[in-house]
Amino acid sequence: MISTMQDEPLSLATLLKYGTTFHSDSEVSTWTGTDLRRMTFGELGVEAAKLANGLRGLGVGEGDRVATFMWNNNEHMAAYGAVPAMGAVLHTLNIRLFPEQLIFVANHAEDKVVIVDGTLIPLLGKYLPSLKTVQHVIVANGDASALEAPAGVEVHSYTDLLAAQPDTFEWPEIDERAPAAACYTSGTTGDPKGVVYSHRSMYLHSMQVCTSNGMALSDADKTLAIVPMFHAMSWGLPHAALMVGASLVMPDRFLQPGPIAQILAAEKPTFAAAVPTVWLGLLQHLDANPQDITHLRNVVVGGSAVPPSLMHAFKEKHGVDILHAWGMTETSPLGSVAWPPAGLSDEEAWPYRYTQGRFPSNVQARLVDDDGTVVANDGEALGELQVRGPWITASYYSPDGATIDPDKFDDGWLRTGDVGKISAKGFLTLVDRSKDVIKSGGEWISSVDLENAVMSHPAVAEAAVIGVPDEKWDERPLVSVVLSPGQAATAEELRDFLSDKVAKWQLPERWTFIEEVPKTSVGKFDKKRLRAQYGEGELDITSLV
Amino acid sequence: MISTMQDEPLSLATLLKYGTTFHSDSEVSTWTGTDLRRMTFGELGVEAAKLANGLRGLGVGEGDRVATFMWNNNEHMAAYGAVPAMGAVLHTLNIRLFPEQLIFVANHAEDKVVIVDGTLIPLLGKYLPSLKTVQHVIVANGDASALEAPAGVEVHSYTDLLAAQPDTFEWPEIDERAPAAACYTSGTTGDPKGVVYSHRSMYLHSMQVCTSNGMALSDADKTLAIVPMFHAMSWGLPHAALMVGASLVMPDRFLQPGPIAQILAAEKPTFAAAVPTVWLGLLQHLDANPQDITHLRNVVVGGSAVPPSLMHAFKEKHGVDILHAWGMTETSPLGSVAWPPAGLSDEEAWPYRYTQGRFPSNVQARLVDDDGTVVANDGEALGELQVRGPWITASYYSPDGATIDPDKFDDGWLRTGDVGKISAKGFLTLVDRSKDVIKSGGEWISSVDLENAVMSHPAVAEAAVIGVPDEKWDERPLVSVVLSPGQAATAEELRDFLSDKVAKWQLPERWTFIEEVPKTSVGKFDKKRLRAQYGEGELDITSLV
Repeated sequence: MISTMQDEPLSLATLLKYGTTFHSDSEVSTWTGTDLRRMTFGELGVEAAKLANGLRGLGVGEGDRVATFMWNNNEHMAAYGAVPAMGAVLHTLNIRLFPEQLIFVANHAEDKVVIVDGTLIPLLGKYLPSLKTVQHVIVANGDASALEAPAGVEVHSYTDLLAAQPDTFEWPEIDERAPAAACYTSGTTGDPKGVVYSHRSMYLHSMQVCTSNGMALSDADKTLAIVPMFHAMSWGLPHAALMVGASLVMPDRFLQPGPIAQILAAEKPTFAAAVPTVWLGLLQHLDANPQDITHLRNVVVGGSAVPPSLMHAFKEKHGVDILHAWGMTETSPLGSVAWPPAGLSDEEAWPYRYTQGRFPSNVQARLVDDDGTVVANDGEALGELQVRGPWITASYYSPDGATIDPDKFDDGWLRTGDVGKISAKGFLTLVDRSKDVIKSGGEWISSVDLENAVMSHPAVAEAAVIGVPDEKWDERPLVSVVLSPGQAATAEELRDFLSDKVAKWQLPERWTFIEEVPKTSVGKFDKKRLRAQYGEGELDITSLV
Repeated sequence: MISTMQDEPLSLATLLKYGTTFHSDSEVSTWTGTDLRRMTFGELGVEAAKLANGLRGLGVGEGDRVATFMWNNNEHMAAYGAVPAMGAVLHTLNIRLFPEQLIFVANHAEDKVVIVDGTLIPLLGKYLPSLKTVQHVIVANGDASALEAPAGVEVHSYTDLLAAQPDTFEWPEIDERAPAAACYTSGTTGDPKGVVYSHRSMYLHSMQVCTSNGMALSDADKTLAIVPMFHAMSWGLPHAALMVGASLVMPDRFLQPGPIAQILAAEKPTFAAAVPTVWLGLLQHLDANPQDITHLRNVVVGGSAVPPSLMHAFKEKHGVDILHAWGMTETSPLGSVAWPPAGLSDEEAWPYRYTQGRFPSNVQARLVDDDGTVVANDGEALGELQVRGPWITASYYSPDGATIDPDKFDDGWLRTGDVGKISAKGFLTLVDRSKDVIKSGGEWISSVDLENAVMSHPAVAEAAVIGVPDEKWDERPLVSVVLSPGQAATAEELRDFLSDKVAKWQLPERWTFIEEVPKTSVGKFDKKRLRAQYGEGELDITSLV
């Protein structure tokens, strides 16, 4: 017996056609600093068709890469619509990459065209001479003549290019496994690594965004997409919006708390998405400038762990539920979302909201210990999180077929590099990065948990914990402490302070007092540097027995 | 550039494993007439594993058909879980088929095993000697010894078979295009036709059931699945429930309004699904026996058109929103669902609720006229509805590769046999079956609309409209009228009565007065018989000019 079902491909062209016709009154709007530039989905359909015609005129064919170097705005949305639907690949360049990384990814992906925002011309201009495959630059929202192009690169005005084009396009039938979009991870070490999403993966991910245990996006939503469109496809919101006719509000380059508050007041979105720092900033702004934001049914927060205090502040001061979520570029990014189980009181729900969230059926998850053994999902056992599913990457993109970073993959599973525990009900709690966890006598100690415990001492300004070799236990924690100005504390006092906060076997013997914790360019603790200082004997260690 | 995404198959085994672990506290419960037999999803996982082991012991291998002849209950749910997940094919036999149809479908599908409810033993017993491929019958909820099996058929007790089995099963990796379940249409003419769903189609359909514009099913839902599990897979609710951990309440054989009201009172479900007649019956019951049913956030009603009066009664008397939906066995069945556009008042929303609903992105729809021309989605032009998408059938199942009913397919689209119009915003309104619509001078007249208009005359008890040949217009309507007892009306009077109700060119010239409208076995107007009576000159026609 064989299935009689149609073999209809899951295609972003279908989504574009659907959203721009049956939801033609939904809107994408871009903040101008004082007002909104509005575009209906019907108009978006025309704009995407014109853009596709324009790109085809520039020689963009199936599988060619069209990069964007843009803020979140209407024109970026038109590129999201047009580029995959015409069979080309949308490569969203992260405008915040270090110069050498930006140049690396554009050359590695072999971008043929770059669409750039006018305000970003000076930045792109610096890189352009190093971009070896770029033939065309299209300037949106700015003066194309302001860009000095190197020989071999043609510069076009977005407006002029589109003006001459037909307002329909014969969107092709596309194999669902064909590439639709590419996004590079901006890891702190090594070259950025490329993830290439397929039409299938993005279509399924869009469905999940609209599903009850995803983001429950619907046509009742007006979504403020603060998370950049170059950051894991703005968490899937643009294509999901086309799927159900949710309106989109785009902040363009106005990402500070003041403008975000203005946008909230002007548009009263029902849903919003951004990393924790944006919400922290907004919270402080709202403390000084009270404003009703109860129009937000939920805000989804991910990218890094959300402090419980931030969730409580939004709930208790503003009546807004933060949805904590976990994902990464390699996971499209929707992994887990912290919807508490149904039927709980607010009080009962909090412990679930603090977690990184519950996995949906489409994201299979397991925890693997150092020996490669899968550990139980019992809410206690720690392991490295591994995931698999139809929108999880199987490898990193390699133009020449070479295998990049094979250690990140384990028998069909993606190794996330995150260490955590999973409850019997599927809720994930992350405790550390796997390279930072301390492996002591076969048990794992979370460096982050220890740091938080030490930093809760009133005399401590900062504390960073790394694992150092130990003859008996393989590895033991070393705590580097920065005391607050004018404060004093000894290693013994700090260890005593920890005694009711962490398990006895985790109590650190090794302590060092330093002036400041070395930091990376994005302000995170630079543990690589700390390990090097320890290795070179630069740290003055107190050993308790 | 090629996609780097994992090629993870969309498999019902993944859903079963997920729902029965991470949502192990969700429940499936079956009404016993006085109480509920409760089973957690955790227990369901064990029961499904035991059933799969038992079936394997009986020789059920990949692709083998396991039929069910059952009410909606826990054991049927275990079969839904186990059979596709083990790589076999679940064939849900419709217990209400005519005997010759039931025998045809079981033989056509080559069912190897039948799982039967104890109460249905007498019914199955009659057919069993004619079922050529059945080797095993498993009796659930009853006495296996009550079934007299023909030679070559072994009878097993469900309980005994499962008792001896291990409580885990190594669910295999399954190709997503492999068959998962089969369902036969019970058309009024010709042999029933088989639709074979794939793992892919059922997985995607499950996602849609959980999506905001599908049924928005979530773990907050307790779903009363009245629609039989042999009727288009209970509209996809069983597998969708596993996907998000929604609890299920099963009515077993207690389908009358009284028991349904008891179940509502006992379980307070949030969601329910059934055909219109069930809701009509319940409404009358509730009129006589008032009961609060506001725990129902929505009820989804499909299978045939929902009278607006029924929707208003549920909303205005009981505060419950009916969701009108359209689909068929061939469409898995979720086609369109009548969620009104967001932001409308109740008053503004009604016209949208009356429609058959709005298509989601996954169900592409078009209207095609008699010449094969696609007509506009302008809410006025009529055409035959054609659909395509990943859970729409591409053909009817044929064991020998012969093509069955090729006229039902048109260049990759399914011809639904329904005539209607689609608005610019994607809302479908059906007006007739295509075989009943009257094709007059290149325009279509809905027989149903004309019937409703005539029946609104106080003297008319029933009216049936068929198309009859006409020299000038190809076809014109003939109205067969049954007058109410003691009432009188002439053809002229009735035509005058219609003059402000239908377009002038649609006003019928041909009328006949009859004693009663011939009916099919399920009580629908038998227009085939009316056409035959007309053809044989049995009707006394009044022709107005």
